[in-house]
Amino acid sequence: MISLESDYNNGAHPMVMEHLFRTNDELTLTYGFDKYSDDAKQKIQKACESEDAQVFLLTGGTQTNATVIDGMLQSYEAVIAANTGHVSIHEAGAVEASGHKVIELEGHEGKLKASDLRDYMEWFVNDESRDHLAQPGMVYISFPTELGTLYSAEELSDIYQVCQDFGLTLFIDGARMGYGLAASTEVTLPWLCKHCDVFYIGGTKVGALCGEAVVFTHQNAPKHFFTIIKRHGALLAKGRLTGVQFDALFSDNLYLRISRHAIDMAMRLKSLLTAKGYRFYIDSPTNQQFVIIPNKRVKTLEKHVAFTHWGPYDSENMICRFVTSWATTDADLDALKKVL
Amino acid sequence: MISLESDYNNGAHPMVMEHLFRTNDELTLTYGFDKYSDDAKQKIQKACESEDAQVFLLTGGTQTNATVIDGMLQSYEAVIAANTGHVSIHEAGAVEASGHKVIELEGHEGKLKASDLRDYMEWFVNDESRDHLAQPGMVYISFPTELGTLYSAEELSDIYQVCQDFGLTLFIDGARMGYGLAASTEVTLPWLCKHCDVFYIGGTKVGALCGEAVVFTHQNAPKHFFTIIKRHGALLAKGRLTGVQFDALFSDNLYLRISRHAIDMAMRLKSLLTAKGYRFYIDSPTNQQFVIIPNKRVKTLEKHVAFTHWGPYDSENMICRFVTSWATTDADLDALKKVL
Amino acid sequence: MISLESDYNNGAHPMVMEHLFRTNDELTLTYGFDKYSDDAKQKIQKACESEDAQVFLLTGGTQTNATVIDGMLQSYEAVIAANTGHVSIHEAGAVEASGHKVIELEGHEGKLKASDLRDYMEWFVNDESRDHLAQPGMVYISFPTELGTLYSAEELSDIYQVCQDFGLTLFIDGARMGYGLAASTEVTLPWLCKHCDVFYIGGTKVGALCGEAVVFTHQNAPKHFFTIIKRHGALLAKGRLTGVQFDALFSDNLYLRISRHAIDMAMRLKSLLTAKGYRFYIDSPTNQQFVIIPNKRVKTLEKHVAFTHWGPYDSENMICRFVTSWATTDADLDALKKVL
Amino acid sequence: MISLESDYNNGAHPMVMEHLFRTNDELTLTYGFDKYSDDAKQKIQKACESEDAQVFLLTGGTQTNATVIDGMLQSYEAVIAANTGHVSIHEAGAVEASGHKVIELEGHEGKLKASDLRDYMEWFVNDESRDHLAQPGMVYISFPTELGTLYSAEELSDIYQVCQDFGLTLFIDGARMGYGLAASTEVTLPWLCKHCDVFYIGGTKVGALCGEAVVFTHQNAPKHFFTIIKRHGALLAKGRLTGVQFDALFSDNLYLRISRHAIDMAMRLKSLLTAKGYRFYIDSPTNQQFVIIPNKRVKTLEKHVAFTHWGPYDSENMICRFVTSWATTDADLDALKKVL
Repeated sequence: MISLESDYNNGAHPMVMEHLFRTNDELTLTYGFDKYSDDAKQKIQKACESEDAQVFLLTGGTQTNATVIDGMLQSYEAVIAANTGHVSIHEAGAVEASGHKVIELEGHEGKLKASDLRDYMEWFVNDESRDHLAQPGMVYISFPTELGTLYSAEELSDIYQVCQDFGLTLFIDGARMGYGLAASTEVTLPWLCKHCDVFYIGGTKVGALCGEAVVFTHQNAPKHFFTIIKRHGALLAKGRLTGVQFDALFSDNLYLRISRHAIDMAMRLKSLLTAKGYRFYIDSPTNQQFVIIPNKRVKTLEKHVAFTHWGPYDSENMICRFVTSWATTDADLDALKKVL
Repeated sequence: MISLESDYNNGAHPMVMEHLFRTNDELTLTYGFDKYSDDAKQKIQKACESEDAQVFLLTGGTQTNATVIDGMLQSYEAVIAANTGHVSIHEAGAVEASGHKVIELEGHEGKLKASDLRDYMEWFVNDESRDHLAQPGMVYISFPTELGTLYSAEELSDIYQVCQDFGLTLFIDGARMGYGLAASTEVTLPWLCKHCDVFYIGGTKVGALCGEAVVFTHQNAPKHFFTIIKRHGALLAKGRLTGVQFDALFSDNLYLRISRHAIDMAMRLKSLLTAKGYRFYIDSPTNQQFVIIPNKRVKTLEKHVAFTHWGPYDSENMICRFVTSWATTDADLDALKKVL
Repeated sequence: MISLESDYNNGAHPMVMEHLFRTNDELTLTYGFDKYSDDAKQKIQKACESEDAQVFLLTGGTQTNATVIDGMLQSYEAVIAANTGHVSIHEAGAVEASGHKVIELEGHEGKLKASDLRDYMEWFVNDESRDHLAQPGMVYISFPTELGTLYSAEELSDIYQVCQDFGLTLFIDGARMGYGLAASTEVTLPWLCKHCDVFYIGGTKVGALCGEAVVFTHQNAPKHFFTIIKRHGALLAKGRLTGVQFDALFSDNLYLRISRHAIDMAMRLKSLLTAKGYRFYIDSPTNQQFVIIPNKRVKTLEKHVAFTHWGPYDSENMICRFVTSWATTDADLDALKKVL
Repeated sequence: MISLESDYNNGAHPMVMEHLFRTNDELTLTYGFDKYSDDAKQKIQKACESEDAQVFLLTGGTQTNATVIDGMLQSYEAVIAANTGHVSIHEAGAVEASGHKVIELEGHEGKLKASDLRDYMEWFVNDESRDHLAQPGMVYISFPTELGTLYSAEELSDIYQVCQDFGLTLFIDGARMGYGLAASTEVTLPWLCKHCDVFYIGGTKVGALCGEAVVFTHQNAPKHFFTIIKRHGALLAKGRLTGVQFDALFSDNLYLRISRHAIDMAMRLKSLLTAKGYRFYIDSPTNQQFVIIPNKRVKTLEKHVAFTHWGPYDSENMICRFVTSWATTDADLDALKKVL
């Protein structure tokens, strides 16, 4: 069975696993004060080319979103997100669980438009009943988005400008950050550090067993963020678990190298499917490809390849998600080519 | 100055105030166990023609919505509402403050459509990732809606049917219930008791100084609802304050009589405006009328009459809200006629 | 039946009710922007002899505590209170409902000791695991306490000093503030304004139907406190309800005058009981008197006078609470004298 | 440097790490539906000798406590714990963060007494203001306690009896469950399944990198517990991470074997210290030993051995915590012997 179902159905990248294995016998400090967490943070700062970047390691995406959002907002503040955003739909209400409303704006292929955001904020500040509303305090976007699309540097700059004009924090969910960076010709970690307030570098979907590295870009981590992490149940006693993994991912450029491989595989996958006449639901430059497949074909195809049912396209066709990862091989795609 | 700005810029209806005044010297039990609260509850049960109705008295609308929703939902459950719903926008995130997501569906002139609700729930139960979503547990609608419109009996029945099909609680916000009942030819309190799980009878906007009477329709009040009210800071030490007021409002049919007066005034207002060539943003049968007025005209009109700026209609016109209440007089409308 | 059961089983003081009655027909602005709320706030500022005092009117005690505490704390901060404090026990978890821990220190006749507070904070700041603990952000005390006792000016000053030394906000629950001010020879509103960060002046138990006036003492109201009030369901649409009442209470020194009357009655009650040989559970200078009464005597006494069972003293005696208020009369006490 | 600082400053037990390493290349289902999680759950059920046991795998202790407590309580319910309990102090308010009060009873060497619990509940149900209090819904205890002590089977049975008498859920925090089971002559997993409602088997401190296995003992997992886990940010995308580890820990009796080793080491440590004349703060039969050491001696000792400063004993002595784990060796203790 060829697996193109997700980018988290495998174990860790071999280099990551080996680093875990090799360091396993050492004694370290706990709660993230270990040497490996320190090294990982320094390497991430270096990759960000910023000494003002503050790095914290958490475990998973929903946890990271809920903790960062709650940590940076006042109790009465809300976060603005695309209606397709992960925090809007797929987090079981984790943001609301800490008391914050998610204000959903219409997404465009998964992306929030700067102009929509500006319109919303202008409406808000001019609305006579604005003090009766949840106060917008943050904008949440994903890079890449949940639909595999990417913001251009200009689109991100424009959104950040709106945020700055209206005093909003810009938070970028980077659960698949590596794949976004590898697919973008413009956006890099140093660039991101200058164009948002906080983002995270996803590990779970890019070669780690678990782990997301939050980067506050300008010494703007909330006071007592360690305690905030603990309060959210997000503090690992053995912080080395994420420390060692990010130490490996940010050694020898591993994180970007394996991300680029996944993008190469995705582009080859796209070509294969295009060549076979498949249509795409969305034009994605990243490792998630959304393909329109006749319902009958879905069933026969599934005997050979695993992918995700995204939802119905129309009564006769389904939107199917194919995902590559650092672990996808040419052999996988060769096999796919045969069964298409 | 003619006042058509809101239905809560006056004091209490004279009969309500007089009852407060007359009973002021009596000693009563506290926390809602007083004689007047008891009488009010019995009178409301009687108006509902239901012995299974359980009545609780709270203070204000947002408080009541937050308390009822939190009281009836499990922690992981969400409430579905129209995107124009009061809980969706105008409650400063009070529902989210107790951890519950508001799932917003597109409203149609302020109303939720049963078919949209059914579509959403069918999507939900068939979605493979549904366990990763906030679980819908309740539907919230307003009668009348925030835009002054009314559900027909058939529309309400259809929504309740969807709720029952999918195990959802139906909650009706009746902040302006009196005006809805007075304007509807179909919906009555006894009818409502058979077509939803919980609703409230708004006092604040229909003649009281404060107070909303929650009615659980079939002995389905959450266990420990008294404690839930207390936990929400919604328990009055002098429960008599709301008890006495509802006792007055539900004596001699006062609540419906004054509501009908407001509707009569609203219909006369509508005629006046129509006769003068004004257009309406929405066709409202209740006490809130949304009128499209050229921006320049707004300014001159405001010298004589108070109304609310609802928002821009287009670059040259504004949507203005005119509201009648139990206190609106023919003299008010005569004066308005002159300045139109 | 003589009523000494509570200070909130009556209606409003006649002057308060009359002001409500007299102003009932006027049209006012809503949500607390009315003339009477403005007047009340100015009169309270004047009584506080402080232009830096910011006043907000809420409805009830638990609501006020939960709103002020949540409004002034960061999400990860806790409030320190005596283990007999109202927020510790009698608010159904309303403080925790907005996510904040109540750290309970041993009370001494209802009072928190400055030295205990200092010991706790010194332990806290020196504890190596302090970042794993809820961070103390506020101290909550009651004046008078839940047991009727009063802090001396020195005790309050000492507590405030500890708060300032450790960066804690000092919040004083004044549900019975009037009775405290009337009983104290040292503490006044102007004095309080210089010795805490925020307090409230209770109306519900001192002559109003409902209402508590929060005073931030040095222009330190949290940003967007109006929205915070709304989010807590604590915003009255007809804000005049509390505005008119506090306008009356702070006219002609009414608030203090009626409080003093209650204290006079309480002292006479205390003398009566002492003369009859009753012992007291606690030596209270305020309007709540805690009397130790043999269980059998309780039953016979209850035929003539209403009071509260506070709890068992030992197997043969009960602690009973007798409460005077602005409404207690000499006739009440004369009657009591006969039945004792 | 000899390390007796904690039981989580090392990596995983070699068998656990090897299982992670060996299975790393396999593709599995995500979110805990993988083969290894299934195997782990079955092995735990078998170790519990109960088909009615429902097992869920989470990541860390605070997270597990917050998720289980929130999942099993209604919004208005509180959890009762010893004042030394982990949830009472060392979780940064994580329980309160989801709205639940922790009611603290005096602990006795870390343990809750059944008689204290019964007294509290009898007071509660007889208190006339009980509906104004947070409603007790659960009892939380730790096995072993935070002070290393153990409940006897009789003590646990008595507590469970009180819980059943008053309708309370009994939850046992087993962050160090293995060490408790190894030290107890009475309590086993099958026994626990019959004497509480839910407990967890700690992995992080007993050989795993992370992971706690929650066991609902009688098919009593809350409805939608998967969604509750997700809402708490506690769901791992690569659920295999905990699955593989518990699969290893519950193969060949590894979990108990390594726990017993730690207890053997702890008893040898205790003998060594006793022989050298050290006094103990508490008599602990488990892997945490609390030793009273003169302040001066602490400084010299720390040059050779790492331990934790628990807090001051008196002005001249400190309470120091020495912890053994599965990784402690005879060589460690031989070295310690020399430096004592």
